[in-house]
Amino acid sequence: MAIDYKKELETAAKTMILVHNPDTLIKMIVRTIVQKVKVIHSGILLYNKDKNSYILTVSRGPVGLRIPEGFTRMDMNNPLIRFFWERKNKLIFNNDYLIYDEGKSFVEQIGDSDLKQLLLGALHQMEIFETTACIPSYFGDDLLGILLLGKKNDGKALGNDEMNFFIALAQDVAMAIKNAQLFTELKSELENKRSLFYHTTIALAAAIDAKDHYTHGHTNRVTNVSLEIAKKLGEMDNKEINEQFLEEVHIASLLHDIGKIGISEAILNKVDPLTEEERKKIKEHAMIGVTILQPIRELRGSILGVRYHHERYDGKGYPEGLKGEEIPLIASIISVADAFDAMISDRPYRKGLSKEEAIAEIKDKNGTQFDPQVVAAFMELCAASKI
Amino acid sequence: MAIDYKKELETAAKTMILVHNPDTLIKMIVRTIVQKVKVIHSGILLYNKDKNSYILTVSRGPVGLRIPEGFTRMDMNNPLIRFFWERKNKLIFNNDYLIYDEGKSFVEQIGDSDLKQLLLGALHQMEIFETTACIPSYFGDDLLGILLLGKKNDGKALGNDEMNFFIALAQDVAMAIKNAQLFTELKSELENKRSLFYHTTIALAAAIDAKDHYTHGHTNRVTNVSLEIAKKLGEMDNKEINEQFLEEVHIASLLHDIGKIGISEAILNKVDPLTEEERKKIKEHAMIGVTILQPIRELRGSILGVRYHHERYDGKGYPEGLKGEEIPLIASIISVADAFDAMISDRPYRKGLSKEEAIAEIKDKNGTQFDPQVVAAFMELCAASKI
Repeated sequence: MAIDYKKELETAAKTMILVHNPDTLIKMIVRTIVQKVKVIHSGILLYNKDKNSYILTVSRGPVGLRIPEGFTRMDMNNPLIRFFWERKNKLIFNNDYLIYDEGKSFVEQIGDSDLKQLLLGALHQMEIFETTACIPSYFGDDLLGILLLGKKNDGKALGNDEMNFFIALAQDVAMAIKNAQLFTELKSELENKRSLFYHTTIALAAAIDAKDHYTHGHTNRVTNVSLEIAKKLGEMDNKEINEQFLEEVHIASLLHDIGKIGISEAILNKVDPLTEEERKKIKEHAMIGVTILQPIRELRGSILGVRYHHERYDGKGYPEGLKGEEIPLIASIISVADAFDAMISDRPYRKGLSKEEAIAEIKDKNGTQFDPQVVAAFMELCAASKI
Repeated sequence: MAIDYKKELETAAKTMILVHNPDTLIKMIVRTIVQKVKVIHSGILLYNKDKNSYILTVSRGPVGLRIPEGFTRMDMNNPLIRFFWERKNKLIFNNDYLIYDEGKSFVEQIGDSDLKQLLLGALHQMEIFETTACIPSYFGDDLLGILLLGKKNDGKALGNDEMNFFIALAQDVAMAIKNAQLFTELKSELENKRSLFYHTTIALAAAIDAKDHYTHGHTNRVTNVSLEIAKKLGEMDNKEINEQFLEEVHIASLLHDIGKIGISEAILNKVDPLTEEERKKIKEHAMIGVTILQPIRELRGSILGVRYHHERYDGKGYPEGLKGEEIPLIASIISVADAFDAMISDRPYRKGLSKEEAIAEIKDKNGTQFDPQVVAAFMELCAASKI
């Protein structure tokens, strides 16, 4: 007997290894079965760890026919689930699978009344699901799920060859689903760690920010503006901008003033004008920040932003007096965002500028204090009212 | 023709989806081929992204025969690699694979001299590898790798059936390898994020530590001792201890004094005895820490340690005066580690105790200041010279 859809399903089974979203994967399999095997409907019962039960994850037919919504969850005591868990049942039938008609004609011959009840229960469940065949997926001894097949469109019975093929397919499906689940777990763990890192860094940076009474919320605002500038530069075709660079900008702006933790509160919060000596002390914050972060290898890129965010394009900045293209782009970006926020913020000895005044000031210092390409991106953002 | 190893290799191919270490996976496949198919040796050339070339990742035979070590890397210009990249070659042979003997008898009939040279080069490369058949693994249009097969032990040629089976296997292998590579990438990304989080937290905590001139290195020492106590409690069968709890202890001890960022330097660094008012101010550090960390959902468990590490078992601690079992275990652990480090550290108004004196002090306050189960674990560590 030629199974013409066999090759197609085999190809699907191979490709599905790389589908790492379990939902997409399962929908794909069921759709393929319904389309190629031409059954009225097909579904998958899948084990759910959190609920310790089996969920009818997907169920569909070509004309939208579905297994009733109310029967979508089965616990470990459900006879259909127990039937496949209790592997001894395999000794009765010669196969892993359960075909409704075969089970029906066999059930009366069973002597053991417990087993008879179990099989009757399983067959009853199949009636509810309008299912003619159930094919289990095992991983080791665990029952990962059950593939449910409805009647064939042409009314014929599913043959042994077909059933054996479905068993192999169900095994592939089980592996692919297990694989996808592991992938999903790993991804969500990664997302958690990522979010933990950002949230902790934001919290600690904000706490350090709070030491400097004049700069409340400063770090947060600089971070937002820096990220906007970096993205805009990317749109303007700057080749340096990629995912990694954006992440470095994010981290560097969060940490750009971290060195202030090493400056005494008396200086940070002084209301009277600073002496030359005090001004010098404050300038140390860039290099104190570098010292704090230096041991963290993963932050190499971001540290450049911390170190050089007070350099000027004309070479008159600090700590090293770098000039023009010598200044890393990440630092030039933070420099504009930092200066802009400082201009619009109130200080004890002056009121903050208006947005418009600050933008004019930045335009005025284009090419002297600021890197022209960064100013260009900043101005585009202003024009689009994103600043 | 019966292929008796077919089922075994198919099973291997299915299981390998869940082997997420590419090296293990490849070794497993090659070992299975050598053992079951009984070829003199087998190897896999695998594409390496970083080097943009194909590396002989594994090569083995039953008696340890290997392809010479010197020929382990092939760039994109290598004729064997080019032969399989340039898919048009498939039009000449009817198959994906290349069998040495077939190629040899066919090469003289080729008119196109470029193609002839390419095939001759590929065959020459096969001679160097002592390989009778090469089976490529494609993912989409990409050549992921090439399976190399040596002569069969019985001297017979590999049949068409066998070759077709190997093509299917090579496809499975390609998928599994691709999958394993994706997994490995994801895992290393996770490891990076994890390490970034810890390193950054350590650096910022240390910087805040440094504000308090008397506690240099304090956070680091408390973290080490807390983790040791937690692990020991796990060995002593405390049911609360698992991976997640250890992580929470780690983070909580790093951050336990983070609230000191909100206490003025004048108080933190005061040499003279503190006034009642100043003492009260310092006690606020626990709740300031909570305020800083509260927004971070992932830190819920750790925050308990920050909040309650100055509670006392007899209820006379702060901030809430919790008593006995009301105090979360994580806080009781940090409490002992924190007190111990404070005792052995010098202060401007007193010299630190010796280790032995401090241990005696902790024993003395067992059940009043400290939780007895934590003291028990601490004492076991002392007895084992781990403190």
